[in-house]
Amino acid sequence: MALLVKKFGGTSVGTTERIKAVADQLVAARQEGHDLVVVVSAMSGETNRLVALADDIMPDAADPRELDVLLSTGEQVTIALLTMALLSRGVPAKSYTGGQVRILTDSSHSKARIVEIDQQKIQNDLSKGRVVVVAGFQGLDAEGDITTLGRGGSDTSAVALAAALQAQECQIYTDVDGVYTTDPRVEPRARRMEKITFEEMLEMASLGSKVLQIRAVEFAGKYSVPLRVLSSFKPGNGTLITYDDEGTEMEQALVSGIAFHRDEAQITVCGIPDQPGTAFSILGPIADLNVEVDMIVQNVGADDLTDFTFTVNRADYAKVMSFLEERKDELGAASIIGNNRINKLSIVGVGMRSHAGIASIMFHALSEAGVNLRMISTSEIKISVVIDEKYLELGVRALHEAFELGDDEVEGD
Amino acid sequence: MALLVKKFGGTSVGTTERIKAVADQLVAARQEGHDLVVVVSAMSGETNRLVALADDIMPDAADPRELDVLLSTGEQVTIALLTMALLSRGVPAKSYTGGQVRILTDSSHSKARIVEIDQQKIQNDLSKGRVVVVAGFQGLDAEGDITTLGRGGSDTSAVALAAALQAQECQIYTDVDGVYTTDPRVEPRARRMEKITFEEMLEMASLGSKVLQIRAVEFAGKYSVPLRVLSSFKPGNGTLITYDDEGTEMEQALVSGIAFHRDEAQITVCGIPDQPGTAFSILGPIADLNVEVDMIVQNVGADDLTDFTFTVNRADYAKVMSFLEERKDELGAASIIGNNRINKLSIVGVGMRSHAGIASIMFHALSEAGVNLRMISTSEIKISVVIDEKYLELGVRALHEAFELGDDEVEGD
Repeated sequence: MALLVKKFGGTSVGTTERIKAVADQLVAARQEGHDLVVVVSAMSGETNRLVALADDIMPDAADPRELDVLLSTGEQVTIALLTMALLSRGVPAKSYTGGQVRILTDSSHSKARIVEIDQQKIQNDLSKGRVVVVAGFQGLDAEGDITTLGRGGSDTSAVALAAALQAQECQIYTDVDGVYTTDPRVEPRARRMEKITFEEMLEMASLGSKVLQIRAVEFAGKYSVPLRVLSSFKPGNGTLITYDDEGTEMEQALVSGIAFHRDEAQITVCGIPDQPGTAFSILGPIADLNVEVDMIVQNVGADDLTDFTFTVNRADYAKVMSFLEERKDELGAASIIGNNRINKLSIVGVGMRSHAGIASIMFHALSEAGVNLRMISTSEIKISVVIDEKYLELGVRALHEAFELGDDEVEGD
Repeated sequence: MALLVKKFGGTSVGTTERIKAVADQLVAARQEGHDLVVVVSAMSGETNRLVALADDIMPDAADPRELDVLLSTGEQVTIALLTMALLSRGVPAKSYTGGQVRILTDSSHSKARIVEIDQQKIQNDLSKGRVVVVAGFQGLDAEGDITTLGRGGSDTSAVALAAALQAQECQIYTDVDGVYTTDPRVEPRARRMEKITFEEMLEMASLGSKVLQIRAVEFAGKYSVPLRVLSSFKPGNGTLITYDDEGTEMEQALVSGIAFHRDEAQITVCGIPDQPGTAFSILGPIADLNVEVDMIVQNVGADDLTDFTFTVNRADYAKVMSFLEERKDELGAASIIGNNRINKLSIVGVGMRSHAGIASIMFHALSEAGVNLRMISTSEIKISVVIDEKYLELGVRALHEAFELGDDEVEGD
């Protein structure tokens, strides 16, 4: 008999019919003998409805404290309805707002961080055989003011509760049935992974496999909470996210997955003096424009001049290009060239740490497929390349095969 | 500079436009130098929307604890929006749920009674010049569970806050501009009263002049909170509800107002033995049918037989008639006669206490108008008669004139 924390997002509880289906699922989990703490989001659409009301009253920017008071009602509606659904199925259950179970946060309204959770009330209910239903996304600060945790906050609430209660697993129900070796829409042979390490998950998430909020994954890693991603719509084991120790790492495949990001653009400042301060003279003003820079590569040239290349989100491309064109002389650059038809393609795997030659397998596979590399960047557990966007699908499939990630059964068909 | 508690109901805050209008009104009250605590209900329609969701999940009867968690979100939305509207008008303001200002209640979900209010937070905000916006209708029990106060609960919240904070006035904004001497739709010369006593208001309310919830009026009387009814849509002083001492009572008009109730039906059990237990033998089983009995009159006959007459809500008439017909022999009654085309007409006034002859003025006026009396019932500050419904308007106008309640200016036109 294990204690499980289960989290259901907005789509999973989007209608009363869906809420009843979640209740049925929880009844089944209880029949398997598990103690359950359930974290829910607002019904899908509800948050948008509330934001529209606030926009109508305070069009410029709603007061953060009051916006949190407003938005936190969304989850409060869901906890009451789900608890009613459990009670009407004969399951003892109790709902709690974030404040009621004292999910204490700092006072950063709309992006609060959890400081502490008082688990006494929940433990007391669990010992009486009750399912405890908790509103995600929300907490209370030291003043007793309602706070919200920001985007993906319900995932974070679930992980924090799992950590505080030392739950056996924190199970996040989403609209996908797990983490795949790559996007199945691009590579039909993509395989659901049974397990993935936290570090790989962080790299996969930030590279565009958007299954979980990075913040929740980081939080789970920090407190060593086993995290599982499952589908709320179809049965299955999903993907377990673990923090592997050295021993199990040996068993890892070299590469776990292929991630990619489409909305990239590449900009090169050509022929600038290769001297201290060059990178900052370019990136400082760009940060001031509120533009996030992703990959950064600088090549040292032969003649004290260098080319400085970086990527930005495609939406920021035009803004950054015209900004740099205006400052070309000031920077002492020969020219500014850009390309907003590129994609980023990455291989991710903790196995890379202890194995040489991964990069050359990657580059060989892409070269065999005729894919030209425009930029290369490496970290401990990932290698990313920038390629022309027309080659993305080709590149994904080439790498998926080169690292033997495919589902054998499908491949055999 | 006075401290005022102002309460706005669901219609007054039914749209974001209405919420902005309330905010404008509050800005004006602040410019007059008042400290303000504002109590609000859920936006009209919101409670019904939430109840429909609960009905869909638990069709028979929603769990009371969870229903309170659900319904209390309605007021929480309003406090956030109204506070935003105040802030965007440059007025410092803060919102609080019932729980946050520790409106402590008993644990009777959906009809909780307020036990205590911790006024510290509110006083602190007021001293900093803030408008304090509090969610009506809701509180917290000793367990920390969310409770609601039941129908008209926001009025009660406002009165309780006014009592705790020793506010100069508790002002209830509704869709009428005060309490009238009678219904202006029946008697165009009906006059808005500047003042009315609590006891008169209780009689007027229970007799069908539904302006305030009786419970809030009782509560205000208990804690001597001056209560004022005003319109949230048009300016004016409304009606102040006071608890007059003997001194001011002398100045009172004999009769303050004419109340009436249309949905009445009269039933007479004729010729039953006049002996102990007769009343109970009839009314006991009727109470078991969940039927509320209003007026009760018993005439002593000459021959040890008596006629026992009472009124019920018209909706219950058929049920009670057939119930009694079946038990006619058992009761030893000669016959059961009924009339569901009657109305109740009452005069109300604390002046009656110290003045004789009021009843005869009433009966004379009705007799002059040709209105036959089917039943008479009196209390310390009211006299009620049952009349055929076709005479209601005639009776109201006759009494309004007999007790000189009319608006002289209108009368002079």
